Amino acid sequence: MSLDESAQKPHDRLSAHLAGDLERVNALIRARMASEHAPRIPEVTAHLVEAGGKRLRPMLTLAAARLCGYAGDHHIHLAATVEFIHTATLLHDDVVDESTRRRGRTTANLLWDNKSSVLVGDYLFSRSFQLMVQTGSLRVLDILANASATIAEGEVLQLTTAQDLRTDEAVYLNVIRGKTAALFSAATEVGAVIAGAPEHQVSALRTYGDALGIAFQIVDDLLDYGGSSTTIGKNIGDDFRERKVTLPVIRAVARATPQEREFWCRVIEKGDQRDGDLDRALAIMAAHDTMKAIRKEALDWAAKARDALSALPGHVLRDTLTDLADFVVSRVS
Amino acid sequence: MSLDESAQKPHDRLSAHLAGDLERVNALIRARMASEHAPRIPEVTAHLVEAGGKRLRPMLTLAAARLCGYAGDHHIHLAATVEFIHTATLLHDDVVDESTRRRGRTTANLLWDNKSSVLVGDYLFSRSFQLMVQTGSLRVLDILANASATIAEGEVLQLTTAQDLRTDEAVYLNVIRGKTAALFSAATEVGAVIAGAPEHQVSALRTYGDALGIAFQIVDDLLDYGGSSTTIGKNIGDDFRERKVTLPVIRAVARATPQEREFWCRVIEKGDQRDGDLDRALAIMAAHDTMKAIRKEALDWAAKARDALSALPGHVLRDTLTDLADFVVSRVS
Repeated sequence: MSLDESAQKPHDRLSAHLAGDLERVNALIRARMASEHAPRIPEVTAHLVEAGGKRLRPMLTLAAARLCGYAGDHHIHLAATVEFIHTATLLHDDVVDESTRRRGRTTANLLWDNKSSVLVGDYLFSRSFQLMVQTGSLRVLDILANASATIAEGEVLQLTTAQDLRTDEAVYLNVIRGKTAALFSAATEVGAVIAGAPEHQVSALRTYGDALGIAFQIVDDLLDYGGSSTTIGKNIGDDFRERKVTLPVIRAVARATPQEREFWCRVIEKGDQRDGDLDRALAIMAAHDTMKAIRKEALDWAAKARDALSALPGHVLRDTLTDLADFVVSRVS
Repeated sequence: MSLDESAQKPHDRLSAHLAGDLERVNALIRARMASEHAPRIPEVTAHLVEAGGKRLRPMLTLAAARLCGYAGDHHIHLAATVEFIHTATLLHDDVVDESTRRRGRTTANLLWDNKSSVLVGDYLFSRSFQLMVQTGSLRVLDILANASATIAEGEVLQLTTAQDLRTDEAVYLNVIRGKTAALFSAATEVGAVIAGAPEHQVSALRTYGDALGIAFQIVDDLLDYGGSSTTIGKNIGDDFRERKVTLPVIRAVARATPQEREFWCRVIEKGDQRDGDLDRALAIMAAHDTMKAIRKEALDWAAKARDALSALPGHVLRDTLTDLADFVVSRVS
């Protein structure tokens, strides 16, 4: 590896290594998001798909398949499948969260309407389903069906736990598995399965995806409380204002004095937020070392992801996936 | 068949013939709509699933499988799959149409919120997907994946053609295939496939479901303009007020005088509707014999459904499906 290359972010190195595959995935995505009858579909989809998402999930599938020595074509279908599922959930999430910005652009629900976002999301789900059927692997279908159920269940769970201070870490873990880790883990697992990898490697790549996804989401939730000075595309305090009960709040509430508990009830449960409340929340978290403990938690998950890769053969892609696990938590370390 | 039995509606006769199977389908639906983590899911789903839908689609699957001599268990999974897909689309439709009543009850989007309807719909889609994977039949998965894509595409198409008087009969046919016929036809086809029926019977049952679904939807659209005095659970003029371009409007516009065309532009495209406009629309349709022509069209599709069944062996279920095709159009004949 040249000095230049090692200086790149792991994500960009994955892109470079998988450039040929990625080009085929992008071509397949463009072909399959078209609709003969309903021109609204590619309009909405293109807005999101071509907005320059990082294609992280499809790259996980491609990397897992290549790492397991796959030489066929079906990893391309599966990578496109995973990106379609991801895009469909983004469209529905933006309706549910009433979001206005996504990937630096105005969201589809604002540009068109909620109806289009709901229905085009459904269309992408069904397209993803057609793509995976083409692989002819029932095991792959089973993994992706289970991941879809976990994703949907996690979303509903998140909806019903918002503003509820009784939410504990076990529930939080279910929410973020649904939100992030289930698709990461299905993405890596199906790559290994389609390659016909031995079971211990399939299991290692599933664990890698799961732990990477959990680390990623914990970091994301931490950054929302300013876990780093260089936050990327996310406003500090969004979750606080939306009264989401994420790990920072759960940990702070667990150690709260009676007075602090009153504060959390007011701002999160009752939604009565005043000027200075976010600063007070941050001060309370700082007093309890909440951020430090959560940072440690994220590092542990990243280490779990890294360790899982020891079951895989030595390979430049393995090294890059290892670095990716470190990179994900480097945003807060 | 007793005199009593022949007097029953075909739908009730299907219920009676398939009672044992239906009970198993209902038990499976109840088991699979549960969610360990998110109690909101069964609340929302039960509201809809237990509101006493007619279970028409799952009965089509059960009848097709039994008619083809199936003696296994997978038709139960497929019938539940089909009902879950149907329920999921209803949840999303009610969000898209901003409906307030469904099956005689307040809709889930009003009782809970749009968010719950979107996400619980997604959950049911993923549950249906898990159920069909359990059959282990890639052909069944392929049929249902294609049906899902047709459904979603039809919904988007309907959204973009609403209020557009250029909508022609070919587009209308795509819309109602998505809205109704695609799932009817997949329901009957997978029943035949899971039974291992010969290709000409699979094709006959696919055709039956498609033609039945089209007849059903044309009749529904006709009834919205009062095609019968005994309309069931639907207010006359809903489509008119929502400016949907269904077959009655398409046919009336095709024969419109310049003055009538101005009327249609005002009420459908511009949405400027005044007292007496629905009556005027009905009078214009009467003058052009629009209803009569559409009734004939529905009867032709019902005849096509009936004729397809000649490829199937003599069987009480075949007779009942034949009667069902007649019954569907009897609402307007």
